Amino acid sequence: MNIYSKHMQTNNIEIEQKISNNLGKIKHKIFVLSGKGGVGKSTVSANIALALIQKGYSVGLMDCDIHGPSIPKILGIEDKRPISTEKGIEPVLVSPKLKVMSMAFLLQDKDSPVIWRGPLKMAAIKQFISDFNWGDLDYLIVDLPPGTGDEPLSIAQIIPKSDGAVVVTTPQDVALLSVRKSINFVKQMNAPVIGIIENMSGFTCPHCKKTIDIFKKDGGIKTSKDFNVPFLGKIPLDPKIVESGDSGKSFMVKDSKSNTVKAFEAITEKIVKNTENRHKKEVK
Amino acid sequence: MNIYSKHMQTNNIEIEQKISNNLGKIKHKIFVLSGKGGVGKSTVSANIALALIQKGYSVGLMDCDIHGPSIPKILGIEDKRPISTEKGIEPVLVSPKLKVMSMAFLLQDKDSPVIWRGPLKMAAIKQFISDFNWGDLDYLIVDLPPGTGDEPLSIAQIIPKSDGAVVVTTPQDVALLSVRKSINFVKQMNAPVIGIIENMSGFTCPHCKKTIDIFKKDGGIKTSKDFNVPFLGKIPLDPKIVESGDSGKSFMVKDSKSNTVKAFEAITEKIVKNTENRHKKEVK
Repeated sequence: MNIYSKHMQTNNIEIEQKISNNLGKIKHKIFVLSGKGGVGKSTVSANIALALIQKGYSVGLMDCDIHGPSIPKILGIEDKRPISTEKGIEPVLVSPKLKVMSMAFLLQDKDSPVIWRGPLKMAAIKQFISDFNWGDLDYLIVDLPPGTGDEPLSIAQIIPKSDGAVVVTTPQDVALLSVRKSINFVKQMNAPVIGIIENMSGFTCPHCKKTIDIFKKDGGIKTSKDFNVPFLGKIPLDPKIVESGDSGKSFMVKDSKSNTVKAFEAITEKIVKNTENRHKKEVK
Repeated sequence: MNIYSKHMQTNNIEIEQKISNNLGKIKHKIFVLSGKGGVGKSTVSANIALALIQKGYSVGLMDCDIHGPSIPKILGIEDKRPISTEKGIEPVLVSPKLKVMSMAFLLQDKDSPVIWRGPLKMAAIKQFISDFNWGDLDYLIVDLPPGTGDEPLSIAQIIPKSDGAVVVTTPQDVALLSVRKSINFVKQMNAPVIGIIENMSGFTCPHCKKTIDIFKKDGGIKTSKDFNVPFLGKIPLDPKIVESGDSGKSFMVKDSKSNTVKAFEAITEKIVKNTENRHKKEVK
């Protein structure tokens, strides 16, 4: 962490004050979480952020996946680094309206595992908020570490008064076991569940054009009904997402007419409506 | 944890002694890990265990995935519980040669997230070894939590002198980023890398029978060459595995002639050879 030592704070009260100030300038804070890894949480986070800037919003994307930060790879900004200025640290600018910070930017070597003990990890995440110039934002998307352990919980607790959490799942039961845990987890965070997204939902064979439900179907809808939380939509299993995630070319821009892009747009529209309504109620 | 309070130890030296004694009766200890979740680590662990018992070995399977324990669901033993006897606690018997313990058996409610802080989790895992009657085993398969954080490292440190670790990945680059971390992680554990398994490798359309590399291809082989570690084999993306994992019917038994079953058998054969050779060298 010493590359940013110039701006590091040792005074806890001062850090909390800075976190509170910086969060105060952000209208909506949304967590993206999943009960287990590998369901596409980071891909979903990145594409929601991109869909939001396409709608004209200013967005921050904070990749808090400490052990497997993949946002920089997905957005093609692996070689970028935040810049330390006199006013603080500037997150990486992906476009004029999209600021990104990721644990990956702090790692010297992309092949090294992060084996930090708990307190150091939390200090790093707090610094993501306290010492970075996020500025005035419409949305901050927080990509939490996968799972429902103490790590995502501790991170969530750093950012109080959020708009809630989006839970990403795949359709099959084994993954849904962990969605049920996620929903209970969000309730324990005292945050609302904005809704469930069912990712990798149905695959269309590029040869014969038939659809195969590789990971089964409709598990997300079923769980949202069981738990009485909104269902935000399905995203198909699409080799183009894998390809664009690996090449660092933003999927939303690359293939603007596909069903997958449409799915992300519709989901983001629902998220905006949900969070705007909540905001209006609070302002009243 | 109080359901097992009768057998809980409070004396640390006594616990370490018991762990050492119990591990001494197990010929081979193998970790199964993945740099990120959702790559099928638990499915692979369960099917390797099943392939080993089909070869006549006695096997223990320890599901240490604290936040998303899915082994009981995969093996259809969700409603079973370990039995406390005068001699200690008996792991769940799946077949006469397969004993299973999972964090899932300790949870009252399958929908509840485990939000235990670090020390309590480690105490639970230690108890899995110290207080359970694993008896004489040929193999203990340890399904670690996903990722390369302090949690899998702490668990790995409870079981010294292992035969090494099997690293499970999917073929695409984003997942491979975390494999590189895993390999470095295993080296930090001072354990050998037994080899890499590439899961979800190629999908054959059930309608037109053409193969589509949904998650790209050959990433696992490439990484094994880069890092000079053995490549154990590819397992196809197979809706039948999803189906059998969800229904709790063992895949290895259910569909004994598929390419997927053959892939698991060939991989297990390589693991046996690798660990037997290491054992012979040590005995000499």
